[in-house]
Amino acid sequence: MIRKDVLDKGFVKLVDLLGGDDTVVRSARVSFGSGSKGEEKDRKLIAYLLAHGHETPFEHAVFQFHVKCPIFVARQWFRHRWASYNEISGRYTVFDDGEFYVPDRKRIREKVNRQGSVVADVSDEEHRAFAEAIEAECARSVAAYRKMIAEGTAKELARTILPVGMYTQFYWTVNARSLMNFIRLRCDEHAQYEMREYAGVIRDVFREKMPWTAAAFEKGSSSEG
Amino acid sequence: MIRKDVLDKGFVKLVDLLGGDDTVVRSARVSFGSGSKGEEKDRKLIAYLLAHGHETPFEHAVFQFHVKCPIFVARQWFRHRWASYNEISGRYTVFDDGEFYVPDRKRIREKVNRQGSVVADVSDEEHRAFAEAIEAECARSVAAYRKMIAEGTAKELARTILPVGMYTQFYWTVNARSLMNFIRLRCDEHAQYEMREYAGVIRDVFREKMPWTAAAFEKGSSSEG
Amino acid sequence: MIRKDVLDKGFVKLVDLLGGDDTVVRSARVSFGSGSKGEEKDRKLIAYLLAHGHETPFEHAVFQFHVKCPIFVARQWFRHRWASYNEISGRYTVFDDGEFYVPDRKRIREKVNRQGSVVADVSDEEHRAFAEAIEAECARSVAAYRKMIAEGTAKELARTILPVGMYTQFYWTVNARSLMNFIRLRCDEHAQYEMREYAGVIRDVFREKMPWTAAAFEKGSSSEG
Amino acid sequence: MIRKDVLDKGFVKLVDLLGGDDTVVRSARVSFGSGSKGEEKDRKLIAYLLAHGHETPFEHAVFQFHVKCPIFVARQWFRHRWASYNEISGRYTVFDDGEFYVPDRKRIREKVNRQGSVVADVSDEEHRAFAEAIEAECARSVAAYRKMIAEGTAKELARTILPVGMYTQFYWTVNARSLMNFIRLRCDEHAQYEMREYAGVIRDVFREKMPWTAAAFEKGSSSEG
Repeated sequence: MIRKDVLDKGFVKLVDLLGGDDTVVRSARVSFGSGSKGEEKDRKLIAYLLAHGHETPFEHAVFQFHVKCPIFVARQWFRHRWASYNEISGRYTVFDDGEFYVPDRKRIREKVNRQGSVVADVSDEEHRAFAEAIEAECARSVAAYRKMIAEGTAKELARTILPVGMYTQFYWTVNARSLMNFIRLRCDEHAQYEMREYAGVIRDVFREKMPWTAAAFEKGSSSEG
Repeated sequence: MIRKDVLDKGFVKLVDLLGGDDTVVRSARVSFGSGSKGEEKDRKLIAYLLAHGHETPFEHAVFQFHVKCPIFVARQWFRHRWASYNEISGRYTVFDDGEFYVPDRKRIREKVNRQGSVVADVSDEEHRAFAEAIEAECARSVAAYRKMIAEGTAKELARTILPVGMYTQFYWTVNARSLMNFIRLRCDEHAQYEMREYAGVIRDVFREKMPWTAAAFEKGSSSEG
Repeated sequence: MIRKDVLDKGFVKLVDLLGGDDTVVRSARVSFGSGSKGEEKDRKLIAYLLAHGHETPFEHAVFQFHVKCPIFVARQWFRHRWASYNEISGRYTVFDDGEFYVPDRKRIREKVNRQGSVVADVSDEEHRAFAEAIEAECARSVAAYRKMIAEGTAKELARTILPVGMYTQFYWTVNARSLMNFIRLRCDEHAQYEMREYAGVIRDVFREKMPWTAAAFEKGSSSEG
Repeated sequence: MIRKDVLDKGFVKLVDLLGGDDTVVRSARVSFGSGSKGEEKDRKLIAYLLAHGHETPFEHAVFQFHVKCPIFVARQWFRHRWASYNEISGRYTVFDDGEFYVPDRKRIREKVNRQGSVVADVSDEEHRAFAEAIEAECARSVAAYRKMIAEGTAKELARTILPVGMYTQFYWTVNARSLMNFIRLRCDEHAQYEMREYAGVIRDVFREKMPWTAAAFEKGSSSEG
């Protein structure tokens, strides 16, 4: 199935999929006692449903992903409660590969929009120095963690010193309605860059697997703005 | 796919399915960073998860049903909120087939357990007479409804006189965790006979499609009682 | 607390309330590590949160209602899954008051908008005749139900002939976020008249108890349309 | 209201409360069309509801907490999806107090039960040395974070090196049904020590505010084991 790399060491894999655009049409038409009526009418129906806030038919198409991302990204992700998650546990698993996120550019606080960040206007060398500083810090924490583990410390306790930039992995099962909500919030320009990188890949998968719904959804979103 | 008749005019169809026992194993093992380890170990894992209340891995297997049942059954069904529904609407659709539920036996109040009902100890003739009385009442309501529709009355208003025994239809998408909860409550002897008839069919589909989980689930349920 | 009559025999009672506008402010400011900053800034914060889709702070204010409405209204109501319900059960309770909904006007199908209905352009006498026809039908069903109960028929079975216009009662606990979604969908002109009557009362209670949020919400909703 | 310290720098505050044992009774009796019937009968009803899996009445009592805990505890906490959360954001707030969790004892891997941990059988001095090692590691990360902030690095980016032992704060609104599920899973001996410390305090608050429900719940839980 689909697998795309994200950031320096992460990925998004589409593991499985239940239905698609046709599932939306079929479940919506149950309300009227009929099924598909050809592409043109089916696409119109999907656009109508989205435009009028009839979102339940989109719950019958279900995506299943395997995601690898930094903990601080996962923490935002898991806020989406209308979905199912299973994550690698730092209590049972030694983070022995010791993978953490290293950004490739320094970003500074944005003056105008205090929520965001902008890429610092500095030399490539300075960007590299910043990345190396992050890497050095995280590597030191991981080394200390490994030492503790070697000394018999319980995994659940030793991990307390690991940085939130550590990579984690999880299974994510989510229906198309909840997925659209995820895309709306996490592809937004106010979302953090690292989050947006993942959300963009999720959106690409959504576009590929549910092209009619994705087209209607994006048209609707842009006309709102 | 699977289609089974229920009661006098109802049915349950399995429309689609995402994953199964292997999905549970795979998503649970993400916690440990591994996948399937052969049938014996995988079955043990499933039994362990259920016995210890680790229910999230079961959310990654998803069933999709098309159901036709009386309104009073649907009302209990829709109380299960961790699932998705799309139902035929009495506002847009004329119930022109006029199908309603006719029980084949009279049931009376049970003295000991005031919640339930028992089949009346009467002659076949009396049972038949009871069924005919129900049928006559509902048929009269449907006839009055049709007359109102013929006179131009809005469907959403005319339906107010239709009985709760009328058949309705809906799409139901539900994960295996929520499905087990449904089976636990609705196959229970305290549940109404008509509800149990549907829940029993759902349980049969569950057994066929997720045999390892169903076996562990039923073993666990019985040892609790 | 607040109690308002709805339709011919229904009501909405506000039983209890957790927090209000101040709860939204307080929980939102946890994100910034601060609390209330005076009415002007607090109102601005609420408007900002709504305008930018930051809806979680509104989940911390919780309403509890006791509702009496026809079954066909309750069926739409219960579709809102992010809320808690406890309803009178037709399995355990005899509907001995036999209350059902009697509309005061005939409504016919609307030609332009096939989903809705419009009040029929007929004489008061015809409206009255229509209401009497509904009443006669429902009364006949209730009489047949009572007869069955008197003959020992189980309540859960006898009720199958009762009309969906019968009144039911339930407790409803719902947070302000879910409540706004309810108001948005159920006060809409596409919603059925009887549903809108209830939703309008719910909106009035919301306006009274969370005036800042309600004002920002209604301003936002209207500018969307 | 109630405020209790947890671990070295955390706390749990009960901010607000909607209802209690009486709310459960009242909402459950809606099903039968009645209210309170005196303490003895009301307690029996609560025990009956819990014993028979009728859990919806417990959703009408709602607790609101303000919690301060390490990030790795919060991550487990947020897995409980039937609840509402608002958390301090590391994107907008500088962790300038730089508070992180320092355990007071070394815990090692348990041989028998590979999931847990046990306090190491070492001298007080060794325990102190362990705590100091944790403290030194986290302090170094915090110092590096502050330096990055001082150099203009965006908060959302600099935090990537902060350890998961950093304290965070959030608002938590949760109904009694979901709360009991939380207590069942998080007071369990298989839960991590730090999580159990919080869950124990939550359970104490629950016992104080809903004594009848808590007593029936704990009796039921123990007889299961």
